[in-house]
Amino acid sequence: MTDADAGQKACFEAGIKLGALYHQFIGTPVSRDSVESLETAIEESVLNQRYVESATVSIKDVEPNQYGYTELSGTMLSVEVVVETGEARVRAVLEETDGYPLMEVREVTRM
Amino acid sequence: MTDADAGQKACFEAGIKLGALYHQFIGTPVSRDSVESLETAIEESVLNQRYVESATVSIKDVEPNQYGYTELSGTMLSVEVVVETGEARVRAVLEETDGYPLMEVREVTRM
Amino acid sequence: MTDADAGQKACFEAGIKLGALYHQFIGTPVSRDSVESLETAIEESVLNQRYVESATVSIKDVEPNQYGYTELSGTMLSVEVVVETGEARVRAVLEETDGYPLMEVREVTRM
Amino acid sequence: MTDADAGQKACFEAGIKLGALYHQFIGTPVSRDSVESLETAIEESVLNQRYVESATVSIKDVEPNQYGYTELSGTMLSVEVVVETGEARVRAVLEETDGYPLMEVREVTRM
Repeated sequence: MTDADAGQKACFEAGIKLGALYHQFIGTPVSRDSVESLETAIEESVLNQRYVESATVSIKDVEPNQYGYTELSGTMLSVEVVVETGEARVRAVLEETDGYPLMEVREVTRM
Repeated sequence: MTDADAGQKACFEAGIKLGALYHQFIGTPVSRDSVESLETAIEESVLNQRYVESATVSIKDVEPNQYGYTELSGTMLSVEVVVETGEARVRAVLEETDGYPLMEVREVTRM
Repeated sequence: MTDADAGQKACFEAGIKLGALYHQFIGTPVSRDSVESLETAIEESVLNQRYVESATVSIKDVEPNQYGYTELSGTMLSVEVVVETGEARVRAVLEETDGYPLMEVREVTRM
Repeated sequence: MTDADAGQKACFEAGIKLGALYHQFIGTPVSRDSVESLETAIEESVLNQRYVESATVSIKDVEPNQYGYTELSGTMLSVEVVVETGEARVRAVLEETDGYPLMEVREVTRM
């Protein structure tokens, strides 16, 4: 057993950011016309948080219902977040994989 | 006992929209820099929904914590929604009143 | 144009409660084992709010993904809320109808 | 630069769980009477997710407003989550610290 080291702490922070944005915004009514403002708002809300260096959010597959919109679901989201804690840098993504909105660490760099 | 009439139905719809946006967006990390994108995203998400004629959202009193942001709370929100069902038009607001985020119908018009 | 009357105010309040619970709880990870605790928590959270006389929540069609759970979606919810403002009583429901999570006023009673 | 190792992956998963529950449940109307059902529902929703071994949720400082309830905020939450990926085990907490709802890794064990 050890305390979390620098890379582990940065991975933890990246996980927080992805879990947070997912459950904050899932369910938001979205249409083709409002995709862009929602992407921007999610990106800027993530950028507000501690250690976040960059955030890129893309919403795809907006299939409007009979009233012209749908609700944001996890598999519609494609997200990349870069977190920097001072000691480590982590790039993590949320991407639909086999029908599941998979979150994964893609890169860990010690600084 | 009666079925809901036109004015009642429109008031019900206005209530849905205010309750929905409140519990969708409360908790979103927001800073002075990201207020505008969040206001726009909330407005456009409300406009997507049935019967919504207009939506105006203003976020005030952003008091950043030690990390430069805060979380959106109900009393920071000032919202006006206009709903039109075809038979009636309702203007409703969410506005901090005595420290409570009060939702109220301001105007009902039969059409 | 008139102010909202008693029936309209009660319908507005019923709409708030349904819109609120919907966007608060949609997205919650749920399995067959946790359906009951989530139903109870939603009911009790709604009962906390102003004017709410009763709340009944039923979650159906839990189709687990490869990891044994799913996320609560609107069409899985069956809800009845009764609101009493002192001057009027409203019974409203959320119920999947033609694949859409429809919210409707079922009964308005002047008191 | 390296791929995430076992401890890093487990820390990432622990972060996801804490970020997710936070932004799923913040804003829920809660009173002293409904604390217990909300704690149970949060615990069970977290337990549904991948890799989660245990989840303990405690809600404190419920200060009712003029209508007898309040909304769940981050500083009211005290949470411990244990995640096990097969290769590593992580214990992480959410705990109010200096007025901020701090999330931290407390223990990482290789298996």
